[in-house]
Amino acid sequence: MATASKLSQSRKPGRPSKSEDLRDVILDQAELAFAEFGFEGASLRDIAGRANVNQALTRYYFGSKADLFDACFLRRGGFLAGHRHVNLDRLLEKTPHPEVEDILLAYLKPQWDMKYSGPNGAAFVALQARLHAEPEEHALRLRREVYDASVKRYISALCDALPQIPRDLISTRMAFLVGTYLFMLNDLGRLDDLTDGHLNGFGKEDMLHQLVTFLSAGMRAAP
Amino acid sequence: MATASKLSQSRKPGRPSKSEDLRDVILDQAELAFAEFGFEGASLRDIAGRANVNQALTRYYFGSKADLFDACFLRRGGFLAGHRHVNLDRLLEKTPHPEVEDILLAYLKPQWDMKYSGPNGAAFVALQARLHAEPEEHALRLRREVYDASVKRYISALCDALPQIPRDLISTRMAFLVGTYLFMLNDLGRLDDLTDGHLNGFGKEDMLHQLVTFLSAGMRAAP
Repeated sequence: MATASKLSQSRKPGRPSKSEDLRDVILDQAELAFAEFGFEGASLRDIAGRANVNQALTRYYFGSKADLFDACFLRRGGFLAGHRHVNLDRLLEKTPHPEVEDILLAYLKPQWDMKYSGPNGAAFVALQARLHAEPEEHALRLRREVYDASVKRYISALCDALPQIPRDLISTRMAFLVGTYLFMLNDLGRLDDLTDGHLNGFGKEDMLHQLVTFLSAGMRAAP
Repeated sequence: MATASKLSQSRKPGRPSKSEDLRDVILDQAELAFAEFGFEGASLRDIAGRANVNQALTRYYFGSKADLFDACFLRRGGFLAGHRHVNLDRLLEKTPHPEVEDILLAYLKPQWDMKYSGPNGAAFVALQARLHAEPEEHALRLRREVYDASVKRYISALCDALPQIPRDLISTRMAFLVGTYLFMLNDLGRLDDLTDGHLNGFGKEDMLHQLVTFLSAGMRAAP
C-alpha cells in the first residue's frame, strides 16, 4: 500500500484520514486471509477480527466477501500496473528504441519485487495465481480492467523492437510470458525437485535474469 | 483410464471386473465435480449421486474426499507421464540426437491432446492448474510422485541436445516451460483480450506449434 498512502499524502499533506487507514488495514488483513485460506475458506468475520474492527464496518466499506476480494485485487493490481507504466515511461525516455531484454525486465520487475516486499506482497502474488487458475468470466473481467492497458503498451514497445514479428504473435508470446513468470513467482519448490535442490542458492535477482534471458529469446524467435 | 484397463486386461483377458468399472465411473464423476466446483465446493454426496452409487461405496473404495482427489490426480497424471515416456522412447528410437523442437513437442503434445479429448480431459487440466496454484507440501509431493521421473528423462535429452548449457539451467528452463504451457492450457480467454480477439481463429495445432517455437528458442538461449 505504499503508493496509495503516498498519493494521499501528496494530495493533502499530513496523515491520511482515519477511514482511509481503516480501509487499508481491512484490505491488508483480507489479502492475508484470502491468500492463506482461499476465497471459500476465508470469512468476513475472521477478516474483521484480524483487522480489529466489527464485521458491520467491513460490510459498510466493502459490501460482500466477493466485493472485498475484488477490492484487494484492484488495490494492489492497480499499484502493479502503475509501476509497469512508469517503468516503461522511464525506459522510453532513456532511449526511443529499447532492447527486448530491457522491455521485459521493466515489465517483470515490479511483481518480482512485490513478491519479496513482505507478507502482503507475497499474499497478493498467491491470490493472483488463484485468480489466474480460475477461468470464470468475473476473474477475466477483473484482470482485464486492471492490467490490459499497461500490457498493451508493452506489446506496442515489443512490436517496435521486433518489426519482423507480427503483432498477433507478439501478443501470443506476451501471454506465454505471463504464464511463465506467474508460475515461477508461485512455485519455486517445484524447481527444487527438478534440480535435486541445486537451486536453493539461486538468488531472486539471478532467477529474474534467467527469466528475462529465456523469454527474450522466445520473443525474438523467427516465426 | 486407458493404462490401468490395459494392464488389467493383459493380466486377465476380457472385460475388466465390475468393481474396476465402478471405480472408474466414480473417478470420472469426481474429476468433473472437482474441476467445476473446486476441492472445497465439491461434495462426496454429489459425486456419489452423479456416479449413481451410494456414498458408503465411494468411501469404501477411496476413503476421504482428499483421498479421492489424489486418486483422480494419480490416475490421469500417471497416464500422462506414461504417454510422455513412450513419446520420448519413440523419438530416441528414430534418432539418437533429436532436435530441441522434437523433444519439446513430444513432452507437450500428450497434455495438449488430453485437453481436447473431451470433458474429462479438460476437467483434469483444470484440476491440475488448481493443484499447481497451491504450493502446499501435499500438492508438491503428489506432483513429484507422478511427474518427476519422466521430466528428468526429458531434461537429460535436452542436456544431450544442448551440451553448451549447464544442466541446472536446463532444469530451470524446464520449469519455465511447465509454467507457460499450463497457463496456455487454461487461459485462452486471457489471450483473446490481449489480441483483441484476433486469436479466435488460431487452431489448437497452430498454438502448440507457436509454443514449441517460443520455448525452443528460450531453451537454446546463450546463458
